[in-house]
Amino acid sequence: MDYRSLADRYGTPLYIYDFDYMASQYNALKGAFEGKKSLIAFALKANSNLSVIAHFAALGAGADCVSFGEIKRALIAGVPKYKIIFSGVGKRDDEILGALKEDILFINVESEAELMRVEAIAKELGKPARISIRINPEIDAKTHPYISTGLREHKFGVDQESAKKLYIHAKNSPFLEPIGAHFHIGSQLTELEPIKQAAQKVAELVRSLVALEIDLKFFDVGGGIGVVYKNEKTIDLKEYASAIFGAIKDLDLTIVCEIGRFLVANAGRFLTKVLYEKDTGKKRFVVVDGAMNDLIRPALYNAYHAVEAIGCEGETSLCDIVGPICESSDFFAKNVALPPTKHNDLLLVNTAGAYGFVLSSNYNTRRRSAEIAIQNGVDRLIRERETYEDIFASELKLLETTR
Amino acid sequence: MDYRSLADRYGTPLYIYDFDYMASQYNALKGAFEGKKSLIAFALKANSNLSVIAHFAALGAGADCVSFGEIKRALIAGVPKYKIIFSGVGKRDDEILGALKEDILFINVESEAELMRVEAIAKELGKPARISIRINPEIDAKTHPYISTGLREHKFGVDQESAKKLYIHAKNSPFLEPIGAHFHIGSQLTELEPIKQAAQKVAELVRSLVALEIDLKFFDVGGGIGVVYKNEKTIDLKEYASAIFGAIKDLDLTIVCEIGRFLVANAGRFLTKVLYEKDTGKKRFVVVDGAMNDLIRPALYNAYHAVEAIGCEGETSLCDIVGPICESSDFFAKNVALPPTKHNDLLLVNTAGAYGFVLSSNYNTRRRSAEIAIQNGVDRLIRERETYEDIFASELKLLETTR
Repeated sequence: MDYRSLADRYGTPLYIYDFDYMASQYNALKGAFEGKKSLIAFALKANSNLSVIAHFAALGAGADCVSFGEIKRALIAGVPKYKIIFSGVGKRDDEILGALKEDILFINVESEAELMRVEAIAKELGKPARISIRINPEIDAKTHPYISTGLREHKFGVDQESAKKLYIHAKNSPFLEPIGAHFHIGSQLTELEPIKQAAQKVAELVRSLVALEIDLKFFDVGGGIGVVYKNEKTIDLKEYASAIFGAIKDLDLTIVCEIGRFLVANAGRFLTKVLYEKDTGKKRFVVVDGAMNDLIRPALYNAYHAVEAIGCEGETSLCDIVGPICESSDFFAKNVALPPTKHNDLLLVNTAGAYGFVLSSNYNTRRRSAEIAIQNGVDRLIRERETYEDIFASELKLLETTR
Repeated sequence: MDYRSLADRYGTPLYIYDFDYMASQYNALKGAFEGKKSLIAFALKANSNLSVIAHFAALGAGADCVSFGEIKRALIAGVPKYKIIFSGVGKRDDEILGALKEDILFINVESEAELMRVEAIAKELGKPARISIRINPEIDAKTHPYISTGLREHKFGVDQESAKKLYIHAKNSPFLEPIGAHFHIGSQLTELEPIKQAAQKVAELVRSLVALEIDLKFFDVGGGIGVVYKNEKTIDLKEYASAIFGAIKDLDLTIVCEIGRFLVANAGRFLTKVLYEKDTGKKRFVVVDGAMNDLIRPALYNAYHAVEAIGCEGETSLCDIVGPICESSDFFAKNVALPPTKHNDLLLVNTAGAYGFVLSSNYNTRRRSAEIAIQNGVDRLIRERETYEDIFASELKLLETTR
């Protein structure tokens, strides 16, 4: 890859996505579920660029959405409405209404109060709502506390007993149609056992519903399959699929997999330019033109990202790679070995395709990056770099009217 | 304040700024420096809404900018160029060039390499650059590690010996004009002693430069005066000013104070609506329509923000106040006592005027909040709520061209 040419043509900092890698990840996961009906729903929150969504839609993927904004994205990008799921712990009334009007596949309900809102809004609309209930299996996912979601102390889902009551309520309501069961115990999972246990628990619940004449059609296993940032052991897809197959072997269910990071994380790289090096006597710093407003994972989750200095040679020494923002939290990596770098050298921050651009902000009035796709060896722009005019527009007209 | 009316008219979530409080904070600080020449430069990074900047500009404030985007904001909002400072550890070439062309007061230089870039660019432009050097006084500011900046292990500034060399280099360069000395040891400071020590160290350096016929004009004391989030002891402004007066009593210097949080933090409140309550058996959650994409301080710095439930009555119990984003890091407060709340009740998150909106993102494809000003009892919109069209625009046209 000629990163210098990309930097010259698109500027830095820059998000670069390998669309071929995304396709191979999608196909590997879809292939693992072969023999069973399955829907791979891309979790838009990981990387919601419209061209990325359209790419997965063309491969046959659905969309796991956590806001009405994401549902709009999915529809614009060409995901069929019958492959769209609406998840999330906090849905506004207008979002629920929007989802029902768009007639998406189902809404993942996360609490009793939410089920009542969905029912009330469906009633107003005069049209039953297809729902699935997110069950909290009370299993420790053994991942970062911020992205662990499967315990009762978390805000997500309802416990199994409560779920059963909600299913019964839904069955008896003319405005609710229970069609799925859902769980998701966390993100960046590297151990299969907690997923297997969760699947078994939820499958058991699904079985107990059959006796109540509640016949679900979808078994939504969430997502969270971990990826390699550094040297993580990852989950074998065949073992993953067979763990789920095992849990539901006696049930006729379509497997829904809501998957984000696995599809996109290692397809993405963040390209940034060296501004200068400085040595404070105590520490070597490589100051780059990217910053925490572009990629906040190191600051927010203390996340590791491997960094390469492109074309730099010489003896390596330890350094911190930091951005221009006026906070000590603005770093990409700490105490990593890099050769000497100079003004305008390029650094590549790896595994930046998930939870990268989507979390970016205009902090310090920095324009958000451009994003490009590489497909079949050809690069193309999929999001323009923001302009200052873009950033100021909605404040500027209000400043002028009050002067 | 009739928050219900504001919610009805502007929607939620909503940032509300008290412009009269901002003015009183500005006047208190400016007043403390009475008897000495001073420039209060509002640190735009804390809250860069154009109407907020214009408000301070009208009071006589300058602008402390950390990007060319912020310089543009200051100029648009009416800050005179001779009151604008450009700080920050990582300045791109085009930003340095822009600042020189706009002829701002001075550039705060943070490293030898940066000084060389500034000199080279000034030379190309054929016009000397007025500079100040940020001196790292090696003093522990005793604040949160992420916002502590005064030690050698931090990326900020240069040590005193190096600073001296840089001043000599600048004096001998036809393209550099050293006019200031700068330090800033951290943010949200609650102890005066570290500031006093830093001022004395830097003043001593300024004195040693006089012998070298380097006569500085500006003594830039940074900012960082802490505010009350919960029950912090704050710094007395008179004592603060007299500590600085004491350090430079024999020197004819204009004091520059780069101040953000102190001016705006407690002027701001974040208004959000309750979606539903849920109780997992282990914990009570109040799910609101605001989220970490709107206000990331609790997730990023584990920051405390007081929360009030407006008009809610009844026995309080402990709860977590959480947003709709699919992460356990999406919270405003944990284990706080609130009365029971119901759908559409309003909560107010306090001390949200600094490092609130400026750090907001579109994570989960959430539209960024509107911002309003309250001045003399009258409210007005100063930033419109984003639309989905705003968010999609630059991706959508590129999606369409490739179809």
